[in-house]
Amino acid sequence: MVKSDIEIAQASPMRVITEIAAKAGIANDAIEQYGNYKAKITFAGLNELEKRDDGKLILVTAINPTPAGEGKSTVTIGLGDALNQLGHQAMIALREPSLGPVMGVKGGAAGGGYAQVLPMEDINLHFTGDLHAITTANNAIAALLDNHIHQGNDLNIDPRRIIWKRVVDLNDRQLRQIIGGLGSPINGVPREDGFDITVASEIMAVFCLATSLDNLKARLAKIVVGYTYDRGPVTVGDLEIAGAITALLKDALKPNLVQTIEGTPAFIHGGPFANIAHGCNSVLATKAALKAADFTVTEAGFGADLGGEKFLDIKTRELAKHPDAVVIVATVRALKMHGGLAKTDLEAENITALQAGFANLNRHIDNIKQYGLPVVVAINEFVTDTAAEIQALTDLLVTKQVAFSLTQVWAKGGAGGLDLAEKVVAATREASEFNYLYALTDSIPEKIKAIVTKIYGGASISFSKKAQTQMTAFEKQGWSNLPICMAKTQYSFSDDQTLLGAPEGFDITIRELVPKLGAGFIVALTGDIMTMPGLPKKPAALNMDVDNLGNISGLF
Amino acid sequence: MVKSDIEIAQASPMRVITEIAAKAGIANDAIEQYGNYKAKITFAGLNELEKRDDGKLILVTAINPTPAGEGKSTVTIGLGDALNQLGHQAMIALREPSLGPVMGVKGGAAGGGYAQVLPMEDINLHFTGDLHAITTANNAIAALLDNHIHQGNDLNIDPRRIIWKRVVDLNDRQLRQIIGGLGSPINGVPREDGFDITVASEIMAVFCLATSLDNLKARLAKIVVGYTYDRGPVTVGDLEIAGAITALLKDALKPNLVQTIEGTPAFIHGGPFANIAHGCNSVLATKAALKAADFTVTEAGFGADLGGEKFLDIKTRELAKHPDAVVIVATVRALKMHGGLAKTDLEAENITALQAGFANLNRHIDNIKQYGLPVVVAINEFVTDTAAEIQALTDLLVTKQVAFSLTQVWAKGGAGGLDLAEKVVAATREASEFNYLYALTDSIPEKIKAIVTKIYGGASISFSKKAQTQMTAFEKQGWSNLPICMAKTQYSFSDDQTLLGAPEGFDITIRELVPKLGAGFIVALTGDIMTMPGLPKKPAALNMDVDNLGNISGLF
Repeated sequence: MVKSDIEIAQASPMRVITEIAAKAGIANDAIEQYGNYKAKITFAGLNELEKRDDGKLILVTAINPTPAGEGKSTVTIGLGDALNQLGHQAMIALREPSLGPVMGVKGGAAGGGYAQVLPMEDINLHFTGDLHAITTANNAIAALLDNHIHQGNDLNIDPRRIIWKRVVDLNDRQLRQIIGGLGSPINGVPREDGFDITVASEIMAVFCLATSLDNLKARLAKIVVGYTYDRGPVTVGDLEIAGAITALLKDALKPNLVQTIEGTPAFIHGGPFANIAHGCNSVLATKAALKAADFTVTEAGFGADLGGEKFLDIKTRELAKHPDAVVIVATVRALKMHGGLAKTDLEAENITALQAGFANLNRHIDNIKQYGLPVVVAINEFVTDTAAEIQALTDLLVTKQVAFSLTQVWAKGGAGGLDLAEKVVAATREASEFNYLYALTDSIPEKIKAIVTKIYGGASISFSKKAQTQMTAFEKQGWSNLPICMAKTQYSFSDDQTLLGAPEGFDITIRELVPKLGAGFIVALTGDIMTMPGLPKKPAALNMDVDNLGNISGLF
Repeated sequence: MVKSDIEIAQASPMRVITEIAAKAGIANDAIEQYGNYKAKITFAGLNELEKRDDGKLILVTAINPTPAGEGKSTVTIGLGDALNQLGHQAMIALREPSLGPVMGVKGGAAGGGYAQVLPMEDINLHFTGDLHAITTANNAIAALLDNHIHQGNDLNIDPRRIIWKRVVDLNDRQLRQIIGGLGSPINGVPREDGFDITVASEIMAVFCLATSLDNLKARLAKIVVGYTYDRGPVTVGDLEIAGAITALLKDALKPNLVQTIEGTPAFIHGGPFANIAHGCNSVLATKAALKAADFTVTEAGFGADLGGEKFLDIKTRELAKHPDAVVIVATVRALKMHGGLAKTDLEAENITALQAGFANLNRHIDNIKQYGLPVVVAINEFVTDTAAEIQALTDLLVTKQVAFSLTQVWAKGGAGGLDLAEKVVAATREASEFNYLYALTDSIPEKIKAIVTKIYGGASISFSKKAQTQMTAFEKQGWSNLPICMAKTQYSFSDDQTLLGAPEGFDITIRELVPKLGAGFIVALTGDIMTMPGLPKKPAALNMDVDNLGNISGLF
């Protein structure tokens, strides 16, 4: 019988976190323990690390996700373990999970099989409280904003033009659209409102791009929360609460250190959406890993067109360091779906579908090469893959002249990724000349055009009347020199989630732009992006339990 | 210039928390560190403590609070420090602060002056995340409940009869009354709803009365969240999520260990409202302190009529240990307000008002003696108190033949409470015969009558039509053998907050009863109790800031 992730995790002995910190050359007085197996790095500790040289950076991304699953986090963790098995000093930098999906449909989000980060129960539940601090900071802004209006509204804020929503770290569709302030004049000002899930908060994006507490405070002050009756932007700075909100985030901003099953040190810190935000773990954690290790393996959300593009065009600018190699994760199963198969038809061998679906992987490879970066394809093997399918896929990759490796990290941990690790190390030694997809000084439509034509393979862009008006207004406000954060379906290169594979000649509609001045990007919405998930008919929570000593069960 | 609380706190060196644990005889492997100065006791550690004998228990309570301030927490902390200075092994058990009031009007809530618990910034902000876990647990129940209705409503729940509200740990009047589920059928079921502040959640009360994780789970399962279309109660157990909700609370339930400025070990754990709930720190923390120390000093919320009565009639039953002595805190200033002075008139000496206001203290002394417990009055001195006022008050106490002591713990720490400590130790050695105010088998109206007539000094009770119907229904449900938790204004013995001093002959109206079956009590509402505070015109948050290394300022 196959063991579940939590069973494997609970059967794995953990080393005390001071030992893991020591492996990364981080002194005891540079960490604050959260129990025996979790720690945060102090700001003084980060300043100390800052003096060291950067190691190599490896970005793990993927083909467009499908319901068949790709295992990007699992490959990221397994690759880190494999690099350590080869004698390199490697670290992993990942996003931290949101509780909502854990309680809903997804279960755990800390890798899988023998490529997991521990303690998986804690990481999947409250961890060190970062998401709670972000929830609280977000909602404190909302409460202080509504209180400002209630208490006389000196800033002349138009309650109909507030764009700052409240958040909870749960899947709660009931809160998507509400009317608040009801009942009596002592209960505030009645207005339409709504809740997002915490990871969709701009605070999360700001948090993940901030380079220090001071930088965080400066970014928070710039967040636009709404508009005045005469249409001027109202910011967190205008409310005079940037200091208090930063104070609420002062511990959360310290990167969290944990370990893999094999004892590889891992930073797990921050986790913004990869559609309405940039989808990468914190800049501070990635920076710290780069300083502490010779090789840092990190990942970006969703596929290479969405999270990968944002890592390279948004996060890299703040990190001041580009990846030395990029791993693109693909599976036979997912490629067969991109080739037109339904999820129910995946068990049977189907070379034709696989070859058709290769078009998706093929375009992602070309896209990453456009940035001037070396690529290694990781084929994450599943037991259902047939030898003929694997052969067909490797034939295509040989023809493509791209480095690739078959990995079995789910089943074997680092031992299942040694070949991948060797190829990745070789790739980081290739000469590379990184270039951004666009210059910040390009106009907003020019930047969007670069992403749509060079990455998505689209033919044209339609801007709604609203988006056109906004572009003119943003230009006037001086907001046009920011990078673009595309909010698009993760399932397709296009804005139509049913167009799998590698669609061509399509038009992308930009419905609306959203200024995220704290994060420092302009979100371009291509459709309705769901920022508050719902729960399924049988939520994962129904299986969860805990015994009298605190041991969790039923968390998958 | 007088130093602020945060300045005094930040100038006080802290001992590492392992050293504090050792003082309490708690081994290193029985704690989980949260940074260097906070720790939680593991369940295995609690089981180990369970084998020891109980020390003496000292309950600190007060006269009815006034805007003049009484300093109950400050006296509790100073008394603990004083007991240690006298060579006793003492511990303190306090409630943990709610962030909402800290960001609003109140500022910090971790004692004051030289009688504080440290690190005060952490304790006042996120601490070890307990309140966030409770918020999440509360809101997960709400999301899972609304999802159940949305997904087909197998339990036949009437959306108009849901009594489970969502919570945030902020003062946010805008959320008091809302309509949720709006916009489209995919957004749930439109219904009236609202948010309370986290400390008003029944989860908080359950959490503070639970004796183990298993007991917590059993209590959570009993919580009534609403009613079916045929008026049957719907519980958390019916939703099949008691395991998941307990899992969310598994770390929070471990008591938090910190230290006072003088290094006295203190448990700070749980903090329910003292009107709609029982207003005491957790049973687990108090139990652990009793086992770890010779003297445990703890407090109850608001005055002796509200928090004190509930400590004795609700918490004591779960604790299986009654106080060995009760300290009643009073100040000259507050007694003058009870004697009829306005806050603006307190600076001038006024013996007449003081003597009139003594009636309030006098009744509280008699009340505690009814329970068969020794009383010591602590007069918490203020610099504005005149010698004649102090003399007048001590004359009254001498006449009353009650032990008393003048304390200066705010200014001097434990050294300002040595005389109090000696008198308290002597009191714990007096013979005492504790008896509850009522038997659990008394009927609901009998129990309410006991509290109103024996504690409040009221003459009669009026039950609303609704309350009468409820009493019959609760009797039928088998809920009538639970203790009563009175929800009454804290400012007066009566249900009219303007009646200060010691009013007599009044009637108390019981408007409504609320079954809190998880907590294990029936709340009797005597008026509108505000369960979601608002923010003032200039919230405390406007003063808060943090520097680049994480040092907080502006937290009072």
